[in-house]
Amino acid sequence: MDINNLLAERTRKMSVNTIREILKVVAQPGMVSLAGGIPAPESFPIDILQLLTNRVLEKYGPASLQYDPTEGFGPLRNALAGDLGSRKGIQAAPENIFIASGSQGVLDAAGKIFISKGDPIAVESPTYLGAIQAFDPYEPRYVTLTSDDQGLIPESLEEVLGREPIKFIYLVPTFQNPTGRTLPLERRQRIADIIQAHDALLIEDDPYSDLRYSGQPSPPIKTLAPDNVIYVSTLSKVFAPGLRIGYYIAPQNVKDWLVIVKQGVDLHTSTFNQALAAEYIQGGYLQQHLPHIIRLYRPKKDAMLAALEAYFPKEFTWSRPEGGMFVWVEGPKGYDMQELYYRCVKQNVAFVPGQYFYTDPAIGIHTMRLNFTMADAATLNKAVKKLAKVIKE
Amino acid sequence: MDINNLLAERTRKMSVNTIREILKVVAQPGMVSLAGGIPAPESFPIDILQLLTNRVLEKYGPASLQYDPTEGFGPLRNALAGDLGSRKGIQAAPENIFIASGSQGVLDAAGKIFISKGDPIAVESPTYLGAIQAFDPYEPRYVTLTSDDQGLIPESLEEVLGREPIKFIYLVPTFQNPTGRTLPLERRQRIADIIQAHDALLIEDDPYSDLRYSGQPSPPIKTLAPDNVIYVSTLSKVFAPGLRIGYYIAPQNVKDWLVIVKQGVDLHTSTFNQALAAEYIQGGYLQQHLPHIIRLYRPKKDAMLAALEAYFPKEFTWSRPEGGMFVWVEGPKGYDMQELYYRCVKQNVAFVPGQYFYTDPAIGIHTMRLNFTMADAATLNKAVKKLAKVIKE
Repeated sequence: MDINNLLAERTRKMSVNTIREILKVVAQPGMVSLAGGIPAPESFPIDILQLLTNRVLEKYGPASLQYDPTEGFGPLRNALAGDLGSRKGIQAAPENIFIASGSQGVLDAAGKIFISKGDPIAVESPTYLGAIQAFDPYEPRYVTLTSDDQGLIPESLEEVLGREPIKFIYLVPTFQNPTGRTLPLERRQRIADIIQAHDALLIEDDPYSDLRYSGQPSPPIKTLAPDNVIYVSTLSKVFAPGLRIGYYIAPQNVKDWLVIVKQGVDLHTSTFNQALAAEYIQGGYLQQHLPHIIRLYRPKKDAMLAALEAYFPKEFTWSRPEGGMFVWVEGPKGYDMQELYYRCVKQNVAFVPGQYFYTDPAIGIHTMRLNFTMADAATLNKAVKKLAKVIKE
Repeated sequence: MDINNLLAERTRKMSVNTIREILKVVAQPGMVSLAGGIPAPESFPIDILQLLTNRVLEKYGPASLQYDPTEGFGPLRNALAGDLGSRKGIQAAPENIFIASGSQGVLDAAGKIFISKGDPIAVESPTYLGAIQAFDPYEPRYVTLTSDDQGLIPESLEEVLGREPIKFIYLVPTFQNPTGRTLPLERRQRIADIIQAHDALLIEDDPYSDLRYSGQPSPPIKTLAPDNVIYVSTLSKVFAPGLRIGYYIAPQNVKDWLVIVKQGVDLHTSTFNQALAAEYIQGGYLQQHLPHIIRLYRPKKDAMLAALEAYFPKEFTWSRPEGGMFVWVEGPKGYDMQELYYRCVKQNVAFVPGQYFYTDPAIGIHTMRLNFTMADAATLNKAVKKLAKVIKE
């Protein structure tokens, strides 16, 4: 049958997912991929999970397999309330913490409740690709905020908010994907002041702050402007991404809408996985396992930065993150990283051309994102060396 | 902060979920609820799950906890291909079967890719409430199809399709929620012919057909008009709803869009739960456990129908389903079931007033849905007796 005349307007505007297409070659045998954005399998607490699955079935029985309220599984909301208070300084009662199917689920729900076609939303440039994929179907107009090595420049936000009403601002303040950049405390405070002054709404997406390998943490913006921030996080990087557990804390008058639309999307997030997560946090396993993950990733990050220093041409610059999963590299203006990508995959090494993280790809043509969590330190060294060799050819 | 001016147009039109509000009293201690729509906890294969969790961690290891393709976990798609072929006569290659976060996830994705504001979609009257909740945010115009005791009347569909182009038709052909009605084979064939003649798209939602307690199954409409049907089903009623595993088989030119929008909504469905489902089906446990579920529910259904026969006034009529989870009761025209509901909950027995299953609630004021899966036969008898007593007061 012919479905073209059945598609919604929004669908006809959706492009084929180019990044998926170009990254297909990454799965070729022998490829060393710095393109991924996923945790190392060695970071997963497999042994703990064996124990947790048995405990969940014993402790909760059929309730762990049954339909559950859209808001989230009670014991997980309790566990998160304690953990967020003690480790991140976010004071929230369990009934104000909501569970989503990955943080992706919150981004979709926020898009649905806030964005009418053509509505302006403000994003960093570059920004997280998954957020663009969540928001795009609701057809927003993207307003671009300016960033430097320390992340979003507060004056850029102030200028935008002074110029027009914005539905919401989307930020990843710590170890941003794709740049690895982190907002310093002074900027967080400035941004908190600005959104309060303009009565603006910020979605603070914080998947990476637990993966800190050096330096001191800064508080979430949520703690500085609690009524103006939807704080979003996930257990994907500190437990297991395949379980799809995200969570959020939203202002009182926002949360009801997010719950209502989630009910239409998936009823609720997997009860069984939420119960596993509850036991993981409540049983002290998160606290116990997190240092293992950090010890696993720290030498990888160091190896990548050392290799960039040793091999990359002087005209290239890169971020030096204290945590997270990514390093961001910029070539000379006009340098075509997509062209470089095709040359590199022929040499069995892959990365993500940075243009895909921009709402206007032309701006990011000279950038690339490198991931350091998947390969070991020696492989990372070799891969960066090979990248540098192809660049110099 | 004031968020009213931040909400999307679609959100401002969303009403508070009245059914959630009126059903809140159902959780009161001592209440016998015929209002639920959920499987009995005794139907869950707890012992098998203990075995499956250990097997999944051993067999798939970290891969069961990792990010996975949006399309679904390979071993589950393989397992479903075999099961659908042997038990439902649906021939589909694994690469044409896609996994969703419950069937709810498919309904949301279909709404997103097909419905522009004001687009007509055709639904039964009454229809499944969760479908309305999935479609509503995309602001369709509902076109109502006429049903009788045997479900959708094919002529009603033909009349609608002849009158105007419809984005899609949504049907639950077997043991429908809320009515328990099942389309006989001749109507299925007629409907297949009609949608093929009009090149129309049907979403066939089939969560209940495995729960057949008597009579002979009819083939899915998917088998009669394969290119015009998105077949949707779930493991919620035959495995465990809390795991949130649904699946679908869509025409070639539809599936890519459904996958693209799902990626923006939750990236993918829980890998771990998909692996559990794969082992449940592949290991023969579904085949082995399903008869237990049927033996559990059959006497409950019989008890409810017998009690209705024994106690209910002659002016009331009800469906006599051969399976599923629901019986549909109609009072005399004009009878106010919502008013009855409030009188019944005072007597500690609850049901769902049927008006909530209609896109125009006024039409269904004299109807109610009764669930028979949650209580035991003796309790069902007492509850129906009490309902009848309150009706007669």
